[in-house]
Amino acid sequence: MTRPWPLLQSHPVFDAGVFRVFRDRAQSPRTGQARDFHVLHMADWLSVLPLTTSGQVVMVRQYRHGSRRDSLELPGGLHDGIDEQPDRGAARELAEETGYATDEPLQILGVLHPQPALLANRAWIYLARNVSHRTPPRPDAGEDIDVVLLDAAEIGSRIASGEIDNAMTLAALGLARIGGHF
Amino acid sequence: MTRPWPLLQSHPVFDAGVFRVFRDRAQSPRTGQARDFHVLHMADWLSVLPLTTSGQVVMVRQYRHGSRRDSLELPGGLHDGIDEQPDRGAARELAEETGYATDEPLQILGVLHPQPALLANRAWIYLARNVSHRTPPRPDAGEDIDVVLLDAAEIGSRIASGEIDNAMTLAALGLARIGGHF
Repeated sequence: MTRPWPLLQSHPVFDAGVFRVFRDRAQSPRTGQARDFHVLHMADWLSVLPLTTSGQVVMVRQYRHGSRRDSLELPGGLHDGIDEQPDRGAARELAEETGYATDEPLQILGVLHPQPALLANRAWIYLARNVSHRTPPRPDAGEDIDVVLLDAAEIGSRIASGEIDNAMTLAALGLARIGGHF
Repeated sequence: MTRPWPLLQSHPVFDAGVFRVFRDRAQSPRTGQARDFHVLHMADWLSVLPLTTSGQVVMVRQYRHGSRRDSLELPGGLHDGIDEQPDRGAARELAEETGYATDEPLQILGVLHPQPALLANRAWIYLARNVSHRTPPRPDAGEDIDVVLLDAAEIGSRIASGEIDNAMTLAALGLARIGGHF
């Protein structure tokens, strides 16, 4: 039976601004031995699956500095902290990145752990129904974004071809597909 | 139109052993301004969806030090490097974590970017058909693993309840579901 590992120590060891690395010392309940683990702490992630009235999915294409290539993804970003409700943050990111918005409340599809071995944060996944284009996108200086509208069938073919390969986007689409939402 | 950002500099700034943090300086093709980005470099991740002959999915439950809680996930781990083919690594992780194996070649479902903004690495997602229990699991000293067999219907209900919330596992299940594999 899996049991929690008691946490013996936790210290910040590197600060990148957008994330901090902590070195945690935890004790195995199976062996009694203590081991060190490095964990990244950062703001929660927000991801939104925006559906237009005609059933198209609003996606974004942007250059990503980890993969050093373009990525076709669902809109999203970082949660702005305790003063922002996550659903408001998801609607904010949708508007900033795409200019699309909806008058309906966003529906939560799931709250995930992006990588529970390495990352302490969570990812809030929302469905936005009946979105329409309202305003020009307002990307920040670190972003360069193209808006791409895709039918559900095109999404499947672009996943199969490998063009859609962002795991968080796949996770959100998987949640929505398993829930029968698109 | 999104264009690549020319990379001006890249320096390692923190070494955690399992990952290294690089500070990359890149130039926006839109504004001409240079900006710094922190990127994690680590081994590729391997994830495997193991299906028994009766159609059950072999999953693992383990304590995770990022989320500091139990996580119900697909088996997987880190790619051992250039001397190991990724499919061999996935089969190795499956055997180590669960004791299950198959005589058939593993089928690649996709090669994802776990988080293309933050992580440079990729995740190799495999389907293992007709797995059966062969050997005792061999978890390493940093692992404490329970093996859990689930029917496809149970997977859906445990995703809906939030018990399955690892984004990489959701991405792999989404790939498999969209591909019609389970």
